[in-house]
Amino acid sequence: MGTVPLLGDADLSPEARAVFDDIRAVRGTDVVNNFWRALAHDPPLLRATWERLKAVMAPGALDPLTKELIYIAVSTANGCSYCVHSHTAAARAKGMTPEQHGELLAVIGMAAQTNALVTGLQTEVDDAFRA
Amino acid sequence: MGTVPLLGDADLSPEARAVFDDIRAVRGTDVVNNFWRALAHDPPLLRATWERLKAVMAPGALDPLTKELIYIAVSTANGCSYCVHSHTAAARAKGMTPEQHGELLAVIGMAAQTNALVTGLQTEVDDAFRA
Amino acid sequence: MGTVPLLGDADLSPEARAVFDDIRAVRGTDVVNNFWRALAHDPPLLRATWERLKAVMAPGALDPLTKELIYIAVSTANGCSYCVHSHTAAARAKGMTPEQHGELLAVIGMAAQTNALVTGLQTEVDDAFRA
Amino acid sequence: MGTVPLLGDADLSPEARAVFDDIRAVRGTDVVNNFWRALAHDPPLLRATWERLKAVMAPGALDPLTKELIYIAVSTANGCSYCVHSHTAAARAKGMTPEQHGELLAVIGMAAQTNALVTGLQTEVDDAFRA
Amino acid sequence: MGTVPLLGDADLSPEARAVFDDIRAVRGTDVVNNFWRALAHDPPLLRATWERLKAVMAPGALDPLTKELIYIAVSTANGCSYCVHSHTAAARAKGMTPEQHGELLAVIGMAAQTNALVTGLQTEVDDAFRA
Amino acid sequence: MGTVPLLGDADLSPEARAVFDDIRAVRGTDVVNNFWRALAHDPPLLRATWERLKAVMAPGALDPLTKELIYIAVSTANGCSYCVHSHTAAARAKGMTPEQHGELLAVIGMAAQTNALVTGLQTEVDDAFRA
Repeated sequence: MGTVPLLGDADLSPEARAVFDDIRAVRGTDVVNNFWRALAHDPPLLRATWERLKAVMAPGALDPLTKELIYIAVSTANGCSYCVHSHTAAARAKGMTPEQHGELLAVIGMAAQTNALVTGLQTEVDDAFRA
Repeated sequence: MGTVPLLGDADLSPEARAVFDDIRAVRGTDVVNNFWRALAHDPPLLRATWERLKAVMAPGALDPLTKELIYIAVSTANGCSYCVHSHTAAARAKGMTPEQHGELLAVIGMAAQTNALVTGLQTEVDDAFRA
Repeated sequence: MGTVPLLGDADLSPEARAVFDDIRAVRGTDVVNNFWRALAHDPPLLRATWERLKAVMAPGALDPLTKELIYIAVSTANGCSYCVHSHTAAARAKGMTPEQHGELLAVIGMAAQTNALVTGLQTEVDDAFRA
Repeated sequence: MGTVPLLGDADLSPEARAVFDDIRAVRGTDVVNNFWRALAHDPPLLRATWERLKAVMAPGALDPLTKELIYIAVSTANGCSYCVHSHTAAARAKGMTPEQHGELLAVIGMAAQTNALVTGLQTEVDDAFRA
Repeated sequence: MGTVPLLGDADLSPEARAVFDDIRAVRGTDVVNNFWRALAHDPPLLRATWERLKAVMAPGALDPLTKELIYIAVSTANGCSYCVHSHTAAARAKGMTPEQHGELLAVIGMAAQTNALVTGLQTEVDDAFRA
Repeated sequence: MGTVPLLGDADLSPEARAVFDDIRAVRGTDVVNNFWRALAHDPPLLRATWERLKAVMAPGALDPLTKELIYIAVSTANGCSYCVHSHTAAARAKGMTPEQHGELLAVIGMAAQTNALVTGLQTEVDDAFRA
């Protein structure tokens, strides 16, 4: 259904196979989801995307669940259906409760609303907010 | 500079003044930022927006700082300059560290990138991600 | 400040000048706003844009003010600062009242909010809504 | 198919049921569309969204059909498939003719085009447009 | 599935039929894709869209394949699924190789990422970049 | 003006300084533009962004000017003012002519317009376009 066919495990180049092996090891599951199977047509792009994602989503000053909530927020604002689905699933796997999901959606909706109001009003930024 | 002039305290209708009083009380500051001074031209819209914002951003299943990070993420994806400025300031006031700010930006950037890749690939959602 | 300098009347090619003459005649004013002065670097693009705008915004099954409100709505959702400014001014010139402006903003904000909620929920379209 | 399952009437909490009753009463139909069935997982969010939508879309300085056209415009610019479907159906129910639909689309398309041109040119806002 | 039904060849008005004839002649194929079959409900909008598309996508200072790559980039950023599919197919028909497709996606993803980072940072434009 | 102050050369950490050295060497100029001076607050993010940008924008199956045109297209669709300015300057430095700039804008505008029309029509993807 996409603009490129999904690659099965048997169709992978050695470089793509090595990335899939790392995805499986890091995630502790045999499943490799469709995004990677589409990206696998371009092994360097697959590798660069996976390596960067792994680094960015690792625990740091923000915990992994918070990072997933931020990811869902961006994906929702960008209207990326696949990404909303996949990162909502990931957030649940990392412990997101139904209450947290509801509050996440409420904040996303509120932000979208005030973003639109400010843009329609073209309000000037307060001096106090500038770094 | 906006599409409506900003209202000073002396220009407010009684209904708008009551909302400004509540903003000052809840936030513990005399400053009322420009967004509310633009919205004050339409007191019912001002009131509805403030009441809803107050409810949505209150502590709940998600803590107030996490809610600000989500707000920044949506505002960034929507390209709302005013909102990025105001909610970055709010997040700092609620304790966001430079390290957290850097990781927030890294996640926002990563999400924007993979949103674009998935959209360009038109990847089909995995059955496992559907509720 | 833009990516191309604005052209003054003395800088126009004959083709661009003819378009400016028509803009002035149709609008009944000597002012030609900056958008056209930037587009004038590419006379065929200037002409095609003006001719199409003139046809689309003419009275028809929708009246000119309603068309301006729709234009503001799209421009706000797309985050186009110039367009929000110019079409808010145009709507006022066509009779938009402060009450109508307030309701326009309320609808734009509400739509942005429910757009975000639906996208976060990935709600399936009801069969009844399909043509 | 969504990120949460749709709730049937038998699955509703009392608070959600009360909102559904009001939706049915206000709209004069027994049908409650999928958006509300997804939101019903979070009864306070359901209630707040419905109450605000009811107020915003009521007749006022703008008539209900004009409000639906604005809603479609925002939803189209935001790429919300569900919302385009549901509000196009709502606009038809409120009397939108095929000619009006065609003109709506023409204005939306024109606005999207000039939004993009202005953004590519980064044209400075005319002083005359500032409030 | 859309907001209007698709028109078959037997359903066309004479004006729409004339546009379809030109689409077939210019493209050298009997196939007229669904976009035009939906637009055909509004023959003047159909004609204006086709005539402008034909002019814009013709060979000029940029070659037709480069124009398709730009079209895919915009469509991806705007999240238009139909357009990503149709213009990816068009780009392949004009010679886009898998390597070029991969690099196109990499640039689109990189741009989306840095767009988000700059917006989150609200970086001021360098004087050297202004026209 | 941004959400973080710009760092001067004297304020850089050793890791950030090494990235700036590479930017200067690769670009053959002493100027390091504001984006990098804002990102320099987070040296690992600075490094990862620069390394990836350098790889993505290098000559490959697409030439560097074509990549800049694609970058401008995405940045315009995303409404990133800074990015439109900086990549328009970069495209000119790589040889973009005024005629090419005009055609680029025309394609971007056309794509934005048909993206909006398709989204408003919710046209179903033709089977022939699916991979």
